Amino acid sequence: MEVLSRIASNDGHGENSAFFDGWKAYDSNPYHPTKNPNGVIQMGLAENQLSLDLVQEWVKNNPKASICTAEGASDFKDIAIFQDYHGLPEFRNAVARFMERVRGNRVRFDPDRIVMSGGATGAQETLAFCLADPGDALLVPIPYYPGNDRDLTWRTGIQLVPVNCESSNNFKITRQALEAAYNKARESNIKVKGLLLNNPSNPLGTIIDGDTLTESLKFTNSKKIHLICDEIYSATVFSEPGFVSIAEVVQQAQQTEEPINLDLVHIVYSLSKDLGFPGFRVGVIYSYNDRVVNCARKMSSFGLVSTQTQRLIASMLSDEEFVGRFLCESAKRLSARQRVLTLGLAQLGIGCLKGNAGLFCWMDLRGLLREPTFEAEMELWRVIVNDVKINVSPGASFHCPEAGWFRVCFANMDDAMLAVALGRIRKFVGQSRPMGKKMGRKLEISLSSRRLEEIMMAGSGGAHKMSPHSPIPSPLVRART
Amino acid sequence: MEVLSRIASNDGHGENSAFFDGWKAYDSNPYHPTKNPNGVIQMGLAENQLSLDLVQEWVKNNPKASICTAEGASDFKDIAIFQDYHGLPEFRNAVARFMERVRGNRVRFDPDRIVMSGGATGAQETLAFCLADPGDALLVPIPYYPGNDRDLTWRTGIQLVPVNCESSNNFKITRQALEAAYNKARESNIKVKGLLLNNPSNPLGTIIDGDTLTESLKFTNSKKIHLICDEIYSATVFSEPGFVSIAEVVQQAQQTEEPINLDLVHIVYSLSKDLGFPGFRVGVIYSYNDRVVNCARKMSSFGLVSTQTQRLIASMLSDEEFVGRFLCESAKRLSARQRVLTLGLAQLGIGCLKGNAGLFCWMDLRGLLREPTFEAEMELWRVIVNDVKINVSPGASFHCPEAGWFRVCFANMDDAMLAVALGRIRKFVGQSRPMGKKMGRKLEISLSSRRLEEIMMAGSGGAHKMSPHSPIPSPLVRART
Repeated sequence: MEVLSRIASNDGHGENSAFFDGWKAYDSNPYHPTKNPNGVIQMGLAENQLSLDLVQEWVKNNPKASICTAEGASDFKDIAIFQDYHGLPEFRNAVARFMERVRGNRVRFDPDRIVMSGGATGAQETLAFCLADPGDALLVPIPYYPGNDRDLTWRTGIQLVPVNCESSNNFKITRQALEAAYNKARESNIKVKGLLLNNPSNPLGTIIDGDTLTESLKFTNSKKIHLICDEIYSATVFSEPGFVSIAEVVQQAQQTEEPINLDLVHIVYSLSKDLGFPGFRVGVIYSYNDRVVNCARKMSSFGLVSTQTQRLIASMLSDEEFVGRFLCESAKRLSARQRVLTLGLAQLGIGCLKGNAGLFCWMDLRGLLREPTFEAEMELWRVIVNDVKINVSPGASFHCPEAGWFRVCFANMDDAMLAVALGRIRKFVGQSRPMGKKMGRKLEISLSSRRLEEIMMAGSGGAHKMSPHSPIPSPLVRART
Repeated sequence: MEVLSRIASNDGHGENSAFFDGWKAYDSNPYHPTKNPNGVIQMGLAENQLSLDLVQEWVKNNPKASICTAEGASDFKDIAIFQDYHGLPEFRNAVARFMERVRGNRVRFDPDRIVMSGGATGAQETLAFCLADPGDALLVPIPYYPGNDRDLTWRTGIQLVPVNCESSNNFKITRQALEAAYNKARESNIKVKGLLLNNPSNPLGTIIDGDTLTESLKFTNSKKIHLICDEIYSATVFSEPGFVSIAEVVQQAQQTEEPINLDLVHIVYSLSKDLGFPGFRVGVIYSYNDRVVNCARKMSSFGLVSTQTQRLIASMLSDEEFVGRFLCESAKRLSARQRVLTLGLAQLGIGCLKGNAGLFCWMDLRGLLREPTFEAEMELWRVIVNDVKINVSPGASFHCPEAGWFRVCFANMDDAMLAVALGRIRKFVGQSRPMGKKMGRKLEISLSSRRLEEIMMAGSGGAHKMSPHSPIPSPLVRART
């Protein structure tokens, strides 16, 4: 008899993928400027470290926010024993208010609809448990975050059905693609229970525009299926066009003649990316459906937010002046950082999808592939991780339908480390001889300037490759336009 | 089409029970000495508030333990971004060391086998997901903690099969009962995957002795099924006989000629009860099975402990002098409190199962029942909650096989509130006229001294009713012996 469960015996956790292998490569040999200057640079981690100095300063100036200071310890007992799964009222109020603020105060959020969860990871799983039975499916546009497979399917037994998005169309989500995915699932006798959107998108670093959201909502509403919007990167939008939340679209839709069923709309949120606190495990579900709120709240017992952390967040996010300053400064720093990266890559003839959000760029290395296959993508990725010693994440791990795209994270390091990374890429790209000798298998990648030029031309089909901020100094790149 | 899942549509969360109804009765009218002196007193919550003043003092004296103080804020960034599901090494080390300390340093715990979870709630569910498939069963001695149904079965689809324990035998777990439950399940074609023990027991307030643990381990080992020991009340043992952990039994068993399969043994632990931090959501799984450790760790992503809290706990539990003082003082206070309650009840002629652990007594009101049924128990419970205005938890909500037992919690209030509660019970018991008039249905409970005397006699079959510390001053009680 197998002593463990089928879940424990399968690979549904998804860790056996290049996405996580890259992390392991980094973990076993992490770069350090002085202690390990030849180590791997981690650009596979979507972490927002750029503005934590502001938070650190705030924390020092607000000792009463903590229950572990002379000023706050008198509340220690009350906070330590608080285990109501509704959460501290001041925590829910502050999070609701923060969500409004990030969305330009154009919508209101009811604190009573906020359900806690262990990060977005827990929020996603909880929603899946609430909305779908084993075997049922959610539609998800590709490329999508690799963790979705673990979060939404591993223990719930549901499945994800890809919605095809193409580089020729900047990976835009079309009604046609939604209908096609839906119909294909139905033809296979799979019950589709919803659509999951990630806005802004990880890995694309782009927002979903209002029209696409409206169209997606019309689609789900017409099929009577759920729309889940994962908006955990909402405050990382750093340039125009600004972020549009599904909450705004819902609000507008309620004012039209075609009413939508609010019971089918749910938002996933977290402070891990926007504030840079992944360790604090603050995730929330915001549902317009009373039954989902009630059920998810009962499930939240499996992953409540520590009251010590609730208390800190409640105090911090209630400081409206601080929140305003943080959001403004964070966007500025993310913008500057993305510009350095995309500009640096452009100077080497490497394009990226035009993005304005997130903690990463979607880098186009299609032209560097031996052939347009995922095997070739994996070969290239191994060179990048093992020889260039940068951990980026290959598109295949995001279920990208087209080989040659890589996610490059830029907010989990300081300027100096980014410069080292760019230097390594420069050296790599500058090598004109075949790389194959270093590897077990022979790779036929020629990286001469001439070849790169061809690459840039070939890869220009629709996907904007430059940040709008980037002047393009390289002759290679100029040749493309 | 049902838009929600079957899980969301069923009652598997178990909140529609008297256990939680009592909490709601309290929540809607909570007692306060001055603001609401006629409100409901909460004796249905197993919360350890008695020694939190020691923790509060420690926190004030150790500002560096927190990342939110001038002394600790320089680590804020590193802690906030730490999201490795292994947890902070210093956290795992400190928890392992604390577990050893609570077990008298008679066993060692390997920090690498400690897996984080969102409280014991999350730990239990994670183990269930790792060990059993939907439809499979775990054996659980009754009475057991009502939350087990939610934690172990709701989302996993597994089932709990009761192991009968009887008051005539002080609810001791026998090999016979284990075999009977196992065979009954097998006869119904249910695959039994394990046995769950709760030591010390909630709701009994008793420990499981070493011989019973050894016998249980032999049983599970012979059946090749798992043994899960939930030891979340291990540091609440306040008098002899001392606590014996399954870890000790396993250690001894390894030294005998009959080797046991370590891969089948797992411990659930938490700091919610022993330290009184339920709000902090610090649960752990300790498994001797490498595959379970690995799988549970991957699942822990759904309910990691906030790194802010990990850091605090790591510092606090590394202070061995403090830990020693806390454990000693906490046991003293729990002992004194239990003594006040059991003595107070004894003076009213009410017995309790003889206990030496936990945050509650298992109170014997069998003699107050109109008839020995769970309907009568529920009637009596309604009187206690609605008229006496004390929320205790009826045995039925613990799946107790015999009507008339109630769990009374004593560590979530101060001395004054306990005195008020005892006063209310005294008044209630002192009423000799039938109580029925106050209720919709007529209850035929006569509470004259004479009747109580009979009750005490009738109910004395085996279950020790007094704490060993209690001198028995009431003539009613003395009459029993």
